[in-house]
Amino acid sequence: MKVFAGNSNRHLAEAICNYLNVPLGRASVRRFADQEIFVEVQENVRGEDVFLVQPTSFPANDHLMELLIMIDAMRRSSARRITAVLPYFGYARQDRKAGGRTPISAKLVANLITEAGADRVMTLDLHAGQIQGFFDIPTDNLYAMPILSRDIKANYDISNIMVVSPDVGGVVRARALAKRLDCLLAIVDKRRDRPGESEVMNIIGDVAGKDCILIDDIVDSGGTLVNAAEALLKNGATSVTAYITHGVLSGGAVTRVTSSKLKELVITDSIQPTTAVQSAPNIRVVSTASLIGEAINRTSQEESVSSLFD
Amino acid sequence: MKVFAGNSNRHLAEAICNYLNVPLGRASVRRFADQEIFVEVQENVRGEDVFLVQPTSFPANDHLMELLIMIDAMRRSSARRITAVLPYFGYARQDRKAGGRTPISAKLVANLITEAGADRVMTLDLHAGQIQGFFDIPTDNLYAMPILSRDIKANYDISNIMVVSPDVGGVVRARALAKRLDCLLAIVDKRRDRPGESEVMNIIGDVAGKDCILIDDIVDSGGTLVNAAEALLKNGATSVTAYITHGVLSGGAVTRVTSSKLKELVITDSIQPTTAVQSAPNIRVVSTASLIGEAINRTSQEESVSSLFD
Ligand SMILES: Nc1ncnc2c1ncn2[C@@H]1O[C@H](COP(=O)(O)O)[C@@H](O)[C@H]1O
Ligand SMILES: Nc1ncnc2c1ncn2[C@@H]1O[C@H](COP(=O)(O)O)[C@@H](O)[C@H]1O
Repeated sequence: MKVFAGNSNRHLAEAICNYLNVPLGRASVRRFADQEIFVEVQENVRGEDVFLVQPTSFPANDHLMELLIMIDAMRRSSARRITAVLPYFGYARQDRKAGGRTPISAKLVANLITEAGADRVMTLDLHAGQIQGFFDIPTDNLYAMPILSRDIKANYDISNIMVVSPDVGGVVRARALAKRLDCLLAIVDKRRDRPGESEVMNIIGDVAGKDCILIDDIVDSGGTLVNAAEALLKNGATSVTAYITHGVLSGGAVTRVTSSKLKELVITDSIQPTTAVQSAPNIRVVSTASLIGEAINRTSQEESVSSLFD
Repeated sequence: MKVFAGNSNRHLAEAICNYLNVPLGRASVRRFADQEIFVEVQENVRGEDVFLVQPTSFPANDHLMELLIMIDAMRRSSARRITAVLPYFGYARQDRKAGGRTPISAKLVANLITEAGADRVMTLDLHAGQIQGFFDIPTDNLYAMPILSRDIKANYDISNIMVVSPDVGGVVRARALAKRLDCLLAIVDKRRDRPGESEVMNIIGDVAGKDCILIDDIVDSGGTLVNAAEALLKNGATSVTAYITHGVLSGGAVTRVTSSKLKELVITDSIQPTTAVQSAPNIRVVSTASLIGEAINRTSQEESVSSLFD
């Protein structure tokens, strides 16, 4: 088994290799003067079981093309099996038509990865389970929840916490965490009664005196979280912390979070943290390296990965 | 027939529509905060013969993804036929393995365009004719030579010009132009006798007293042209002008050309000229809009485009 990485998250790739006790595969993924990508695999991969660690996070198009070109290079170098490991799957939010005459870009991306020559795909907390159905090749979707719930247990008095879904779309995920932690569940229900009127935050569930744990898969602008935190505190919550798998954190998101009333935002390293994220006082990153490393280990030994979620 | 464009060369798309006397199709190709592309086709295309004008020039990965997502959106909107029009085909120089364990990215790109759902592809002065063979769908490769030779005839005393290939790889293209103009041919033969030694420019052919016309398909750094111009002048050429189809002009290329001894660099609008290019005193842009427009016109009427090159 050999593990390679493009440029999107070399820290995670190195941590995974550390877990597996293998060296990171040597491959050069560079740019020509016109910024076209050039890939050169610098060690023999003939007959090998190859894993390419490359989340398609910002800039998604560049990171996706790096992945596709690496797959092409590996295939032409006679790798036996190529697994594309996308801890963050870019374009996942475009998983259905957003209106008339719009694309389904997540399906397009699935087709591109397959067409380039991937034999398998490994993802983490996919935005929607349906995206697995976009692939005809085998997929393994890992869950960060065991990592996040372990972190919650280590840092909070479980008897006083309340798991909160930041919107009705996330209730299933939040319920799973609440069940796992054996605690209560609340929901932030954003409503705009008439177009033009400002949004009203209704809290379903009694959060007074509780340490609230917001859970979601993606934090992008941070606006939803920051507003939810305000509403929860206004409703008497003692503290609000957010556990979110993928820290997209576009635009002014980091500043928005640091200047908010969120006690802490905990994200994973599915997307390589920027220096701004690393130095933000109330953002903490937990690693998925051992989870992904163990999944790679089991996949390469043709073992099931499902027990990783117990 | 309907013509749409992404963001890579709206000027050319509008000029093509002008030639065809049709309005540019309405489609919004925007970015989310995290820079993922979002496409919305804003008019009915059901049953239509759709042409998407989108050279995959710098930034190639973004422009390619725009094209692929537009194709996806058009296909899901029941367009009858989709022709991807790539006046400049990004990644064309990666049309063969550059060494062991390297990709053939031009073939990958061909597969991606097909997989996204294009029915046909139209290109202009493809870097290598072989790239047409990378596609299993019909392709039309247009030639800029009739446009360029018309411009040469309008600006030069044909009886005193000499067509020059800037390297041995371009001799076939240069010979075709020389034949068309019924003039002599010279070749710049770069040689490095031993690794580490500086390159020597041998001029094959007597250029003394001649107005030299360098011809090639791509100008990228501009270094080759500028060096060739120096060598030709040193060998007694009266003037040196370059006619190059695709003005990639990476990095400091525009400055390199403006401060060189090139009388003029003439490029086409296959790549949308930057403002630096537009204001460069010795760079001139000739339009391919009527050539591409006429090719679109004939393609949509199921007529041959080959007579466009007479
Ligand atoms: N990269 C993106 N950034 C922000 N919004 C997006 C992005 N991709 C898709 N969307 C929108 O997000 C919505 C889907 O989000 P969700 O309901 O959470 O699945 C749709 O309205 C999409 O148009
Ligand atoms: N975008 C690019 N910029 C500069 N060189 C490239 C690019 N793509 C490919 N090449 C290199 O250009 C050479 C092929 O050029 P050519 O011989 O003109 O077909 C190969 O050595 C490629 O590695």
